[in-house]
Amino acid sequence: MLINRRTILLEWGDCDPAGIVYFPRYLEYGDGCTHALFERVGLPKPRMQERYGIVGIPIVDVKARFAQPSKYSETLTVESSITEWGHSSFTVSHKFMRAKDVAVEITEKRVWSGRAADGSGRLESREVPAEVKEKFGGAPSAPAVKK
Amino acid sequence: MLINRRTILLEWGDCDPAGIVYFPRYLEYGDGCTHALFERVGLPKPRMQERYGIVGIPIVDVKARFAQPSKYSETLTVESSITEWGHSSFTVSHKFMRAKDVAVEITEKRVWSGRAADGSGRLESREVPAEVKEKFGGAPSAPAVKK
Amino acid sequence: MLINRRTILLEWGDCDPAGIVYFPRYLEYGDGCTHALFERVGLPKPRMQERYGIVGIPIVDVKARFAQPSKYSETLTVESSITEWGHSSFTVSHKFMRAKDVAVEITEKRVWSGRAADGSGRLESREVPAEVKEKFGGAPSAPAVKK
Amino acid sequence: MLINRRTILLEWGDCDPAGIVYFPRYLEYGDGCTHALFERVGLPKPRMQERYGIVGIPIVDVKARFAQPSKYSETLTVESSITEWGHSSFTVSHKFMRAKDVAVEITEKRVWSGRAADGSGRLESREVPAEVKEKFGGAPSAPAVKK
Repeated sequence: MLINRRTILLEWGDCDPAGIVYFPRYLEYGDGCTHALFERVGLPKPRMQERYGIVGIPIVDVKARFAQPSKYSETLTVESSITEWGHSSFTVSHKFMRAKDVAVEITEKRVWSGRAADGSGRLESREVPAEVKEKFGGAPSAPAVKK
Repeated sequence: MLINRRTILLEWGDCDPAGIVYFPRYLEYGDGCTHALFERVGLPKPRMQERYGIVGIPIVDVKARFAQPSKYSETLTVESSITEWGHSSFTVSHKFMRAKDVAVEITEKRVWSGRAADGSGRLESREVPAEVKEKFGGAPSAPAVKK
Repeated sequence: MLINRRTILLEWGDCDPAGIVYFPRYLEYGDGCTHALFERVGLPKPRMQERYGIVGIPIVDVKARFAQPSKYSETLTVESSITEWGHSSFTVSHKFMRAKDVAVEITEKRVWSGRAADGSGRLESREVPAEVKEKFGGAPSAPAVKK
Repeated sequence: MLINRRTILLEWGDCDPAGIVYFPRYLEYGDGCTHALFERVGLPKPRMQERYGIVGIPIVDVKARFAQPSKYSETLTVESSITEWGHSSFTVSHKFMRAKDVAVEITEKRVWSGRAADGSGRLESREVPAEVKEKFGGAPSAPAVKK
């Protein structure tokens, strides 16, 4: 299982009056880390859109656990990986590490999505190409994964 | 169970290049709706801080389900309520409605939190005062609630 | 000169560790107020795009003056108007009022913009239709305006 | 004059439905670059607060010029420097470069600020310590600077 690591510097403007990171910012950081994970295997988003004709990989479900608050000017290391592949969906996990401790954990369920052919502009799911899954090392299928 | 309703206008700057609301924005909207819910019972945050000596009600767990994408300039109505009270924590649920449909559903687990007395600046949980729970109509305790 | 007013509730997540609104948020509020100003004359953005074939009204220059800090849970009233019309550009002014005081003042210079016909995706300026200017009451031309 | 350089990766969530960076995000990037500039001379914000007893360096005026739009997944290099020192205020300039072109230019006027001694919580300006100015190489005083 491929793990991509990214260092996040916690900016002043991402913190709230309690002096800690405002929680929706972690979801933004995680989203950037998912894109970095795909870029790591040669699939920056513009390339994904062009090669596979998709619009993107929107999130349908997200869970986050905030174990420790973090403050302005700290850095966290995010470990990102794909922990489950479905037919047209997949699960990305992000662990925000402060040294050996998990400060925040995020689980995103995403869908490989294109525009419907009916001209409505509506998004619809597509099968994730096998070659995409292979870039991440095949990876675990269905079971074994948190609901 | 008290339900507070708030209308959210989806702004251009909250939408992404796919033309739909960037998902962390919903978490921000939800956070504002939680504050509006407490304000509804006479507890805007500055009042909560002053009256109960807490710093805030930080989130320890959040789950969101994105059932339908939403676009710029649409309005959604958010229905917010407290669906479970624990000793020092509680659960807030937000349903983002487009007419009769749920577009997004968010569940926040929050902790009634003050500064530790040791001068470290660390946050620690406190018991939720009974009078706070009563303001919301007593409300459901422990069971009955999604995990 | 048409003035549109909008009330802004300052949210917790828009404030920084100093306890005051993080300044880029005012630019977001102002952007929303510009859209509300056009909506006021029957031109919500989707309608502008459809009727006039433009992509939007991107900002080329912005100035902001922060006269007074504002805190979480305050409300400000924003007065927005178009203070100058050029050929393909125009100036929008926003005054963020706390009672009789101006807390923040923003001046945006925007361009009426479509996609270039060369298929490059590049944005190019277009002449602002006379009927658009008329909706705002004709309005002041070129001079008379702050530099 | 000390110039600090920082590379900014333009994230999906920072772009709007027109596919370009939503302009208030540049102000956030610039703010981060100002903090990085002070960090470069040994003054990360927590250190500034502790050593000089200030709350921060809030912005009182900002100007931005958007010369070229930028798209998702591009990187820009920001060149940041202090272009004027006043008694209690100073000017920071940021140039966002795409290769040799300036895509965005931001000028921030900031004030060295502490809490008033009257217990009101109000911010008030303080004289910028000479040793701070020296860390940046003395730097240009009053005139010579863009209005």
